[in-house]
Amino acid sequence: MPLGNVLVSVALKGDLTMNQRTPSLPPKSALTRFSVAPLSTMTRRLADVASGRAPADLVITGARVLSTYSERIAVEREVWIAGGRIAAVKPAGAYRQVNGAPGRVYDAKGGIIAPGLVDPHIHIESSMITACAYAEAALLNGTTTIFCDSHEIGNVMDAAGIEMMLEDARHAPLSIFLTVPSTVPATSPDLETAGGDLTPEKIAAIFDRWPEAAALGEKMDFVPVTMGDERSHAILAAALERGKPVSGHIYGREFVAAYAASGVTDTHEAIDRDIADDLLDAGIWIFLRGGPPTTPWHSLPEAIKTITELGASHKRICVCTDDRDADDLMMFGMDWVTREARRAGMSREQAWSMGSLHPATRFGMEGEIGGLGGGRRADVVLLDDDLKVQNTWYGGELVVENAKITPVLDQALSNRYRYPEEAYRTVHIPSVPKLVPELPSDACTANVIRVALPGIVLFHDKVQLEKADSWDVLLSKNDLTFVTVIERHGRTGGEGVAYGLLKDFGLKSGAVASSVGHDSHNIIVAGTNEADMRVALDALIQSQGGVCVVDGGKVVAMVPLPIAGLLSDKRVTEVAEETRALKAAWEKAGCKIPYMGFNLIPLSVIPEIRITDKGLVLVPEMELVPLLEG
Amino acid sequence: MPLGNVLVSVALKGDLTMNQRTPSLPPKSALTRFSVAPLSTMTRRLADVASGRAPADLVITGARVLSTYSERIAVEREVWIAGGRIAAVKPAGAYRQVNGAPGRVYDAKGGIIAPGLVDPHIHIESSMITACAYAEAALLNGTTTIFCDSHEIGNVMDAAGIEMMLEDARHAPLSIFLTVPSTVPATSPDLETAGGDLTPEKIAAIFDRWPEAAALGEKMDFVPVTMGDERSHAILAAALERGKPVSGHIYGREFVAAYAASGVTDTHEAIDRDIADDLLDAGIWIFLRGGPPTTPWHSLPEAIKTITELGASHKRICVCTDDRDADDLMMFGMDWVTREARRAGMSREQAWSMGSLHPATRFGMEGEIGGLGGGRRADVVLLDDDLKVQNTWYGGELVVENAKITPVLDQALSNRYRYPEEAYRTVHIPSVPKLVPELPSDACTANVIRVALPGIVLFHDKVQLEKADSWDVLLSKNDLTFVTVIERHGRTGGEGVAYGLLKDFGLKSGAVASSVGHDSHNIIVAGTNEADMRVALDALIQSQGGVCVVDGGKVVAMVPLPIAGLLSDKRVTEVAEETRALKAAWEKAGCKIPYMGFNLIPLSVIPEIRITDKGLVLVPEMELVPLLEG
Repeated sequence: MPLGNVLVSVALKGDLTMNQRTPSLPPKSALTRFSVAPLSTMTRRLADVASGRAPADLVITGARVLSTYSERIAVEREVWIAGGRIAAVKPAGAYRQVNGAPGRVYDAKGGIIAPGLVDPHIHIESSMITACAYAEAALLNGTTTIFCDSHEIGNVMDAAGIEMMLEDARHAPLSIFLTVPSTVPATSPDLETAGGDLTPEKIAAIFDRWPEAAALGEKMDFVPVTMGDERSHAILAAALERGKPVSGHIYGREFVAAYAASGVTDTHEAIDRDIADDLLDAGIWIFLRGGPPTTPWHSLPEAIKTITELGASHKRICVCTDDRDADDLMMFGMDWVTREARRAGMSREQAWSMGSLHPATRFGMEGEIGGLGGGRRADVVLLDDDLKVQNTWYGGELVVENAKITPVLDQALSNRYRYPEEAYRTVHIPSVPKLVPELPSDACTANVIRVALPGIVLFHDKVQLEKADSWDVLLSKNDLTFVTVIERHGRTGGEGVAYGLLKDFGLKSGAVASSVGHDSHNIIVAGTNEADMRVALDALIQSQGGVCVVDGGKVVAMVPLPIAGLLSDKRVTEVAEETRALKAAWEKAGCKIPYMGFNLIPLSVIPEIRITDKGLVLVPEMELVPLLEG
Repeated sequence: MPLGNVLVSVALKGDLTMNQRTPSLPPKSALTRFSVAPLSTMTRRLADVASGRAPADLVITGARVLSTYSERIAVEREVWIAGGRIAAVKPAGAYRQVNGAPGRVYDAKGGIIAPGLVDPHIHIESSMITACAYAEAALLNGTTTIFCDSHEIGNVMDAAGIEMMLEDARHAPLSIFLTVPSTVPATSPDLETAGGDLTPEKIAAIFDRWPEAAALGEKMDFVPVTMGDERSHAILAAALERGKPVSGHIYGREFVAAYAASGVTDTHEAIDRDIADDLLDAGIWIFLRGGPPTTPWHSLPEAIKTITELGASHKRICVCTDDRDADDLMMFGMDWVTREARRAGMSREQAWSMGSLHPATRFGMEGEIGGLGGGRRADVVLLDDDLKVQNTWYGGELVVENAKITPVLDQALSNRYRYPEEAYRTVHIPSVPKLVPELPSDACTANVIRVALPGIVLFHDKVQLEKADSWDVLLSKNDLTFVTVIERHGRTGGEGVAYGLLKDFGLKSGAVASSVGHDSHNIIVAGTNEADMRVALDALIQSQGGVCVVDGGKVVAMVPLPIAGLLSDKRVTEVAEETRALKAAWEKAGCKIPYMGFNLIPLSVIPEIRITDKGLVLVPEMELVPLLEG
C-alpha cells in the first residue's frame, strides 16, 4: 500500500492471544514450491546431467538466452533442466552429443528465454484473492516468486491470520515468501478498533517458526521510527537480530537519513527522482513501483530518473507491483512493470534484471532464483522481443503456454488451500445498529468529509445544516451521503458505530458497503437511505465480508469476500469478473471515487478527516470531532 | 591458492578426532570486530543522531563521498558516526545545525571518503602470520573485512587448527569471516601423509558452532566435483543445506556447467576473458585476483576483459588478493588490486565497489559493510584522487592516519591472541632419518624433477647416472640437488621419508628447507650435501617450523614459523623484514625458483612430477615412481 501511518504508533495492550499454527508441508503430489527438491540433495544429479552422464528431463532449445548476470542476450542457446532445476545453458544443439534422450525437447523458436520474475513487494489481499488463486495471475505474467506482506489479514486476524496465509502460500503453485507485517495496528485503540496487534514478540515468533518469513514487511510508521519510538524499534530489532532485512515505506527527504540509520534497507515509496536518489545513497534498495498509469501507484517513471537523469547505477534498483485490483492483475503485472522500466530508458537486459535478479539478490536468494545459473530453480519464461510472456515453466513444469495456462496448472489451481472455518467467521456484529445519525432538532454545523479526485486526501468541510423535517432534504440540498462505520471484530459489544457525512460522493441512490476498510477493516457503509444501507450491511454479514452496491432494496453487484472479510475463495478469473461487474455498478451508481478509494475512507492516517468506528478523526491532529456541532 | 587438487579426492579414514573449541568473545576493552554493537541494539541511538537529537561521536567533514550504491562521487559532504556505525551522510557543515557538540570533528580536506575494502578471498597463512598480525597490513591497505580460508592450518591440525585461527580472528582488530576449508586433504593417504581430514561432519560442525563461518571455502577438487564424487558432494551439501554459499576454484571451460550445477557460486581462478565470461553467465560471482605482476596470481588484467571487451555488467564482479608474501602485503594489497581494476578500464567508483560493496553483497552482508549507508559499520577510508589510502577508521576508530598506524592500533596489535601450546608442537619427527638416498652401486636412470620458470609446473626428466664414487660427482655433472621430504605429523613413526633429485634448481652450496610444503605441510629439504641438510632440518625441528637457508653448517637466514609450522607469532613488519632477508639469502644461494615455488614441490596435484613423504608422484597419472631405475 502506498499509504500508512505517518503519525503515530501506539501499542495496543495485549488482550489478543497468540494463535500459533504448526507449519506443515503440502502433499507431495501437489505442484508447489516444494515440488523442487533442495539443491543440497541434487548436486550430484545436476553435475551428471551437465556433464552428459545422465539425461535431462527437459531441453528448451533454439532460443536466445537473457543473462541477468552479465546483462546480455546470447543467441542460439538451449537450457537443460533436471529435477526442476537448471543443469546447464549450452549452445543450441549441444544436447545431441550427450548420452540419454531427454524427457522432452521444447523448441523455443528463437524466442528469448529468461528467468521468472521476482516481485519484491506485494500485498496479495489487495487483489481480494487467496495466495493459491494469486498464483494463476502471477504465472501468466511470468512471475514465479513473490515477497508478500499480508498485513491486511494481520489487521483482522492477528498472527493467526498471517499463519493461515502462510499455509495458503505453501499450497500455491508459486514461490511465496513473507515480509512479516510490521505495523499492525496502523494507529491506536483510541482512534479505531482493530482485530490485530502484532507485538515484537509475535513477530519474532513468526520469524522463528516460518523459514519463508524472509524479511520484516514495510515499516509504515516511518515518523515514529525516525523519532525513536520504542515499540517500533523493538520490532526492527526482532528482525535485525535474526539477520532478517527490513523493508520500508517512507515519504519525505528529511526522514531518509534517520530511517536508513534505523536499519531499513528497501522502499517502494520513492515517488520522485530526488528522494529515490537520497534513498539509494543512504544504502536503501529501491523498488520502483508500477501500476495503472492513472493512479498514484505508478511512481516508476519519475523515480527511475535517478538512473536516467542523475546517473546512478541501476544495480540496487528493482521493480515491483505493490497492490493490484484483481481485474488489473493481467494488464498491469510484473512483466508490464518491467516493460515500463524499459520504456523509461533501461535496456531489455537491465529491465528484466531489475525484475528478477535484483530482487533475488536483495533478499539473499540469488543462488536459488533470479537467473539461469547452474543449480537454480528452473523458473523460466519464454518472451517475445517486446518482453511479453509467452510461456512460463515453474520448477521445470510448463504452466503457461502461448499466454494460456496449461492443464497441469489448471489442475493445481483446482485444489486450492481451504482456510480454516474461523477465517470464514470474522464479521462479528451482535445486532444490527441504527445506520444513520439522529436528525438534528435544530440548525447546526456538520463536520463532513469531502471527497475529491485525483488524490487520496479527504477534505474537512464544515457545512451549515438548517432545521429540516428529514435527512433527505439535508442530503440532497448539500450533496451529502450518509457514511457509517461499524466495528466488526466483536470487540465493542455493538458499541463501535460511528456516523458521518460524505460530500460530493456522487451516489445517486441506494448504498455501497465494504468489509475492506483500511487498515482495521471494519464495515463501511455509505448510502442515501437507511433501508438500502441495511440491505448492504445484511449482505456483508450474510457473506461474512465483501464489497457491494445496493439499489432499490436489492444487491445489484457484489464481490463476496468470506475469508477474513478480505478475500474471495474463488479463482482469479472469477474474482476479476466479479470485480469488473462491481466497478461497472459502482460507476453507474454515480460514485465519484473508485471502490479502492472508498475502502480508504477509514484509514485514519491520511489528512484531513477520516471516519473509524470511534468517530470522525482529524489528521494530522489525531483528534476525534463530533459529526454535528452547535 | 591458485593451485589445488585437479584430479582426485579420496577420504582419509578417520583416525583423527575432532577437537572442538568453545567459541568465546575477546575482552570488551580490546579493539575487535565486537567493539561495535549489533545494529539491532543501536537503531534508536542512530535515529537520534541522524535526526539531530543526540550528538555524534565523530564527524568527518569537508570530504567528497564515494557511493558504492549509486557509483558516484558527491562533493562537499560529511559523515556522522556514532557507536562505531554510520548515522548519516550529509552536506558538509550540516552538523552545525544540530544540538550537541560531536565527540570529534575530523577535517578530511577534500579527500574522498569511501567504505573500507572487503577482501572476498584470502589465505592468511600465505603471509606466514597470524590473523591478529594480518590486521595491521589489511588496515594500512584500507581493508576492514576479509573472508579467509584457513585450509593450510586445517591440513596440519585438522578442525582444531581451524578453530584456533577462528579464535585468533575474533581477537583481531579486523572483521574476519571464514570460508570453511572444503578440500582437506588435497589428495589421498596413498600419495601423502597429511595432518588433517575435514570430513563433511566436521565441516558441518564448524558451520553450526561459528557464526562467522560464512561460506564453504574454495572447493578445489573441481574434477571430482564435476564427476559427482560422493565425499565432495557431501561437503557441498553440508554448506548448501545450511544456506551457506560455496566458493570455488576451477580451471577449464569444459567444467564450468557441471561445477555451477553443483552449487558453486564464486571463483577467483578466472584466468582469462573467456572462462570469466562463461563463469559469469553460469551464475558464478567472479573474484578478479590481482597480485605481483610477475606471478601467475595476477590474472585480473586478462579476466576483466569480460567487462571491457565482452560487455558484461560488472555488478557481480569483485576483486581479491588470495595469497601474499608478508613483504608483498604492503605493496600489493586490496587497495592496489582495486587500483589495478581502475587501470584496466573501470571507473574509480566501479573499481572501489568491486572491492567493497560487491564482495559484501556476495556474502549477504551488504546491510553491514561495503558502503556508507545508514546503520552500517563505520569502516571508512580516506583516499586521495588515485585511490591511495590515507586514513582508515575501523568501526569508527581511527587506526591509520597519513598511511601510518595510530597508537590505538599499535596498542591493539601488541595484545595479539596467543595460540595454545599444542599449536607450537606440530613438527613430530621421532628421530632424524638419513637425508640423502643411497649412492647407486651401478649406472642407472633417475626420475628427476626439473624446475623451470615461469610457471609452477615441474617437469619429469629421466637422467642417466653413471657409476660414481660419490653423489658429489653425479650432482655436479648433472646439475642436480638432493630433495627430501620428511613426514612431520607423527603418523608414520619415522617411516615417512622420500628422496628425490632436483634438476636446474641452481643451489650452489648448502641447503634450504621449509615446513610449509603444500598442502600436507611435511618438511621439505633440498641441499648439495647431507650435513647442511641436517643443519636445516635441525633448525626447523628446533623452531617447530620455518623456512631457512643454510650454508657451511650455519643457518644464514630463517623465518621461524612456530605455529603449526606455518605461522610466525610476530608482527607483520617483523615477518616482512625476515622474509626480505630470507629472499635475499635464497637468491644469493642460487635458487632459481622462489621459496613459495619451492613450497609447492610436494603439491601432488600439479603436473608432471612431485615429491611427497610417500615418494615421487607422477601427475596426472597419480602414480608413485622410484627415484632410481634399472
